[in-house]
Amino acid sequence: MLIYNPKDWWKLIFYFHKADTFRKLLPAMMGVMAYTFFISYLENNVFHFVPLKNPLAIHSLVGFVLSLLLVFRTNSSYDRWWEGRKIWGSFTNNSRNLALKLSAILPDKHESKEVFRILVGNYLLAVKDYLRGHVNLEHLDYVGNYNEAFYANYKHIPNRIGQAIHLEISRLYKVGIINAEQLIILNGELVSFTDNLGACERIRNTPIPSSYNIFIKKMIFLYVFTMPFGFVLEFKFWAAPIVTLIFYAFAGIEMIAEEIEDPFGTDSNDLALDTIVKNVKNNLSEIFKN
Amino acid sequence: MLIYNPKDWWKLIFYFHKADTFRKLLPAMMGVMAYTFFISYLENNVFHFVPLKNPLAIHSLVGFVLSLLLVFRTNSSYDRWWEGRKIWGSFTNNSRNLALKLSAILPDKHESKEVFRILVGNYLLAVKDYLRGHVNLEHLDYVGNYNEAFYANYKHIPNRIGQAIHLEISRLYKVGIINAEQLIILNGELVSFTDNLGACERIRNTPIPSSYNIFIKKMIFLYVFTMPFGFVLEFKFWAAPIVTLIFYAFAGIEMIAEEIEDPFGTDSNDLALDTIVKNVKNNLSEIFKN
Amino acid sequence: MLIYNPKDWWKLIFYFHKADTFRKLLPAMMGVMAYTFFISYLENNVFHFVPLKNPLAIHSLVGFVLSLLLVFRTNSSYDRWWEGRKIWGSFTNNSRNLALKLSAILPDKHESKEVFRILVGNYLLAVKDYLRGHVNLEHLDYVGNYNEAFYANYKHIPNRIGQAIHLEISRLYKVGIINAEQLIILNGELVSFTDNLGACERIRNTPIPSSYNIFIKKMIFLYVFTMPFGFVLEFKFWAAPIVTLIFYAFAGIEMIAEEIEDPFGTDSNDLALDTIVKNVKNNLSEIFKN
Amino acid sequence: MLIYNPKDWWKLIFYFHKADTFRKLLPAMMGVMAYTFFISYLENNVFHFVPLKNPLAIHSLVGFVLSLLLVFRTNSSYDRWWEGRKIWGSFTNNSRNLALKLSAILPDKHESKEVFRILVGNYLLAVKDYLRGHVNLEHLDYVGNYNEAFYANYKHIPNRIGQAIHLEISRLYKVGIINAEQLIILNGELVSFTDNLGACERIRNTPIPSSYNIFIKKMIFLYVFTMPFGFVLEFKFWAAPIVTLIFYAFAGIEMIAEEIEDPFGTDSNDLALDTIVKNVKNNLSEIFKN
Amino acid sequence: MLIYNPKDWWKLIFYFHKADTFRKLLPAMMGVMAYTFFISYLENNVFHFVPLKNPLAIHSLVGFVLSLLLVFRTNSSYDRWWEGRKIWGSFTNNSRNLALKLSAILPDKHESKEVFRILVGNYLLAVKDYLRGHVNLEHLDYVGNYNEAFYANYKHIPNRIGQAIHLEISRLYKVGIINAEQLIILNGELVSFTDNLGACERIRNTPIPSSYNIFIKKMIFLYVFTMPFGFVLEFKFWAAPIVTLIFYAFAGIEMIAEEIEDPFGTDSNDLALDTIVKNVKNNLSEIFKN
Repeated sequence: MLIYNPKDWWKLIFYFHKADTFRKLLPAMMGVMAYTFFISYLENNVFHFVPLKNPLAIHSLVGFVLSLLLVFRTNSSYDRWWEGRKIWGSFTNNSRNLALKLSAILPDKHESKEVFRILVGNYLLAVKDYLRGHVNLEHLDYVGNYNEAFYANYKHIPNRIGQAIHLEISRLYKVGIINAEQLIILNGELVSFTDNLGACERIRNTPIPSSYNIFIKKMIFLYVFTMPFGFVLEFKFWAAPIVTLIFYAFAGIEMIAEEIEDPFGTDSNDLALDTIVKNVKNNLSEIFKN
Repeated sequence: MLIYNPKDWWKLIFYFHKADTFRKLLPAMMGVMAYTFFISYLENNVFHFVPLKNPLAIHSLVGFVLSLLLVFRTNSSYDRWWEGRKIWGSFTNNSRNLALKLSAILPDKHESKEVFRILVGNYLLAVKDYLRGHVNLEHLDYVGNYNEAFYANYKHIPNRIGQAIHLEISRLYKVGIINAEQLIILNGELVSFTDNLGACERIRNTPIPSSYNIFIKKMIFLYVFTMPFGFVLEFKFWAAPIVTLIFYAFAGIEMIAEEIEDPFGTDSNDLALDTIVKNVKNNLSEIFKN
Repeated sequence: MLIYNPKDWWKLIFYFHKADTFRKLLPAMMGVMAYTFFISYLENNVFHFVPLKNPLAIHSLVGFVLSLLLVFRTNSSYDRWWEGRKIWGSFTNNSRNLALKLSAILPDKHESKEVFRILVGNYLLAVKDYLRGHVNLEHLDYVGNYNEAFYANYKHIPNRIGQAIHLEISRLYKVGIINAEQLIILNGELVSFTDNLGACERIRNTPIPSSYNIFIKKMIFLYVFTMPFGFVLEFKFWAAPIVTLIFYAFAGIEMIAEEIEDPFGTDSNDLALDTIVKNVKNNLSEIFKN
Repeated sequence: MLIYNPKDWWKLIFYFHKADTFRKLLPAMMGVMAYTFFISYLENNVFHFVPLKNPLAIHSLVGFVLSLLLVFRTNSSYDRWWEGRKIWGSFTNNSRNLALKLSAILPDKHESKEVFRILVGNYLLAVKDYLRGHVNLEHLDYVGNYNEAFYANYKHIPNRIGQAIHLEISRLYKVGIINAEQLIILNGELVSFTDNLGACERIRNTPIPSSYNIFIKKMIFLYVFTMPFGFVLEFKFWAAPIVTLIFYAFAGIEMIAEEIEDPFGTDSNDLALDTIVKNVKNNLSEIFKN
Repeated sequence: MLIYNPKDWWKLIFYFHKADTFRKLLPAMMGVMAYTFFISYLENNVFHFVPLKNPLAIHSLVGFVLSLLLVFRTNSSYDRWWEGRKIWGSFTNNSRNLALKLSAILPDKHESKEVFRILVGNYLLAVKDYLRGHVNLEHLDYVGNYNEAFYANYKHIPNRIGQAIHLEISRLYKVGIINAEQLIILNGELVSFTDNLGACERIRNTPIPSSYNIFIKKMIFLYVFTMPFGFVLEFKFWAAPIVTLIFYAFAGIEMIAEEIEDPFGTDSNDLALDTIVKNVKNNLSEIFKN
């Protein structure tokens, strides 16, 4: 995630770092500009068409519904991004709550504190890696029985770590260190880990319906590539930069929506999952300190 | 569900697979084009009308409210689609949580693990089939007492499988394998299965109010079929492709909204329920492995 | 509720059943048409006004904010309608969950199964009648102590049936058939019945603030009745059908919003409460069968 | 709250009761009209300016973003109003659920039934008065120990009544009339009273950020008071009623949003809290009857 | 937070206190005005360009999608602000509920009442300071074992205070003053403190994706700085104030959104956290009084 100061207008306006929409769209914008120049040349200097009275009336009509669709797209992408952030906030909260409860329930220096510190840290790390494509077992910390053998032959590693947490709680309950009412109050956090994992998988595996994606891209294409026809007669060669900027406006919105639709990657707009995992690990260390 | 790469613009713009909105609308677009040609011919070549000054003023006025209605329609359809996805995400989470809890509660190799693995798998499969119109008993797996006789003479099969899960939990509780506090912490998952089933039925059986559907279709019809009257005098035969594209824009949005309104079918925009059921079955196998 | 196929465009476009917005608005549309004809005649043939350059500029300015208000109105009405549907979905889920739990808790053939089957069925039926204005005690089924005398002298019948369910649970708990942990896991469903009832009463008794309703109607009136003044000079007698259609667009949206604002009635857009109650009764019979 | 029939169009259009937006705005509308007349006189009859080609182009550009802001304002105000209604619906539901549970838990004719009937009634009454500025202890009913002395020296009366409910439950628990599991199932309702109280305080004490309020009012002012400059040259003295109506449209929306932003007062758009409190009291009497 | 009367129009319209958007934008507005004057001078008096027919057509097209983006930005910022307020409302509710429960559970004059009064007060104070950048241990009150030594060497002070609350509950439970069912009903409040803390951290540490921020600022810049080119030919030197006001409209909305995006600071639009903390402390004192 890019760290930035939202109030620094000048810097942001003239900021074209490598992930910026402007730079990403630059090649396409060059193409649109060349295309408009070409049409302009044809109409003005070859065919000598006469200007229309309302060259933009149609585009104004269609531009309205296209703009609304783009904002719908923006909203749904942003909702996914923000829901993703909420889920990781919930991971943070659950980890802390589980640690606070266990640190109060377990006797001082009980060795299970270390087990939970490691397992919860592993869980978040594994979910992060899982969402980015591959869980590397070597990144996990092993503790007690929850070692390499425990994870071997399991495909869905986050589920397996979740199972380790359940088994450890269950073991403590069977030996009487956790009692009935403590088992009940620990339930919420245990359930929530799996719920959050499932919610992340949902966001990652379900882009918006393909129809919308295809429809919006087709509309932007039709909109921009038909624009020069009636338009260049009034604006002459000025049409080229103008059409290019309109293309930037519409395609830019669609492109940003695409970027934030799956917020768990490593793009500059994606969530700072590495930082979150690191912070939670630090919190767990502090809470389980004594 | 169609799997696609949302960032591949050129492919999506020139992609006309058989479920694409463009191809579905093609016959109607041909009709609109022919109709506009005909009106254009009449007005320009037969009656020789004189052009209006603002031929699109009325359509601009009405187009605004129609566009907003279409976006309202898009939003409500998308919300149903996304809620449907959330419900199936919740099915996944509940199945996993129930399995994680039971695998920690039940003794190793206890035969009820297999029973729950089968019943939960059956439940999701039956809900999917139920939403698509018909539950085929032959697709279910039978286990222990929960065999063909158990389901015979029951119409609402998902409810019957839910009852099987409740009965099995209740049986284990009566023989003392599940105790009081474990019964309490299993409650959330049991309740959630029925809640999710009911939510799916709600989405499937309740389309948006017929008035909106009828009103929007009438408005699109009036909008597109009155457009050529004042319009063809300025644009001549160019009016035919222009009106056709405007029809594509408006009718396309309505058509996509229709498609995703009921997300549980087998269209290319519908949810990948088969994949979800398969994944959950795999997860259950892994969790109940030992 | 009207059952319809949302994908049958032609049928819906030319469908004018007796509850259709078009037919309901027809008298008003006739009035608007006559009024516009009259103004047109006056301005064109009596006073011979000269046309304005931008006759629709003002209406375009105001039409924008009016359209947005109408969509706000549409959204809030639809939210109420959909929330109403969710509440009845929740009634369905609770009834099923309560039945599933009790059928697993109660011994086979226990007579309380029949009591709960009747009481829950009564509850939904009474809520439906209550929302439609009057609960007829004769529609209820009596069982055990929960007979005519039990309901006599009570005004709020749904609450009284809710009390019957609480009393029956409490009785079973006191005689030891339901134990402590089962009482706890039944709590959610009991609470939810009253919550859903209250939510229905809220939607039914609280229309949107009168200010909005009055303001929107005044704006539509001013908008449509001032439209002919500058307008008929450009469009002559064509103005009459055009103004009528614009009136149809704006008043139609407001009228549909009014219809679905209170979704518990018996209009063709209202929720199919009778079907829901019947389905739940069937489900309860199946669940409590053995 | 004003009771009205939302389907009676003619009555609402020509209805100008004393709280109506139209009447409230009338003095300001008179001022705008006089101001426009004056500018019109100056420009047409004194300075003899020549008309612009697009006198409304700028206002059309800015009017769009202003309209969107006003709808944002409308949405956020309406959300607060509707959330306020939901909170009071939740008060109703909690009161009923608490009464239903206690009436089933407590022995017949137990004197605590009367205590809870009074305390819950007091709670709602006190919250209502608190939200309207002042709790008058004389409006409360006293019962048992919860008398004048109990409330003396306490500033936050609703909290003190909440404490009374907690103390009474706690007392019954200590003497064994309420047991462990009943204490657990009563917890939800007890917590919810305080949550609802806090939510009401939140809505009442937090208007939308002052920046928006100031910005919107400044924009409406600039929009309306600059309108006559280019405008009166085309419309002459007709400009006066037109500008006045546009002012009515924009200022009216802002004014209604202001009115419903704090829904707990006694304006005609505010919630019918008196009726709700009365209904709950009646419900409690019926539920605790025997 | 600025306290103001939202119904006092004249005062708000002519109110330019030091935090007002108008005053903050004034230097930039001066720049825009000078720039437009300069372009106007060049085009009219130096180059003598001929006016375009539709100088604002392009800006009208792009202005639409820019306005929608700004409203999207406004909505998401306001949602964060309002969610922040809800979280602090939830802090208030939890503190009260915890106090109400403990005051009923604990024996009269039990010394732990004082401990919880201090710890909960500390928690809210520390969260507030933490969100504003730095927790000063000297602002905390010490009580019993929860003294300077207890907090020493801990970086995340709010978590440490949360741990103190958990430890104190756990201690009372181990010595038998709090029993099993009371532990269960206290769980909700304990969990909620950490959840609220995490939600505040989420809002504070996650601004909207940088792409949107950069894109919107670039669009406003392009929009305003290209406006004079075609525009000044029709409006001459009047263009300078007009373009300035349009800049005020667009940049003002973006600037307000920036201000309220992080609602936990000390700006005039930020939440009144100091007041909330003070009120909760007073409530706790009253509830724990006896």
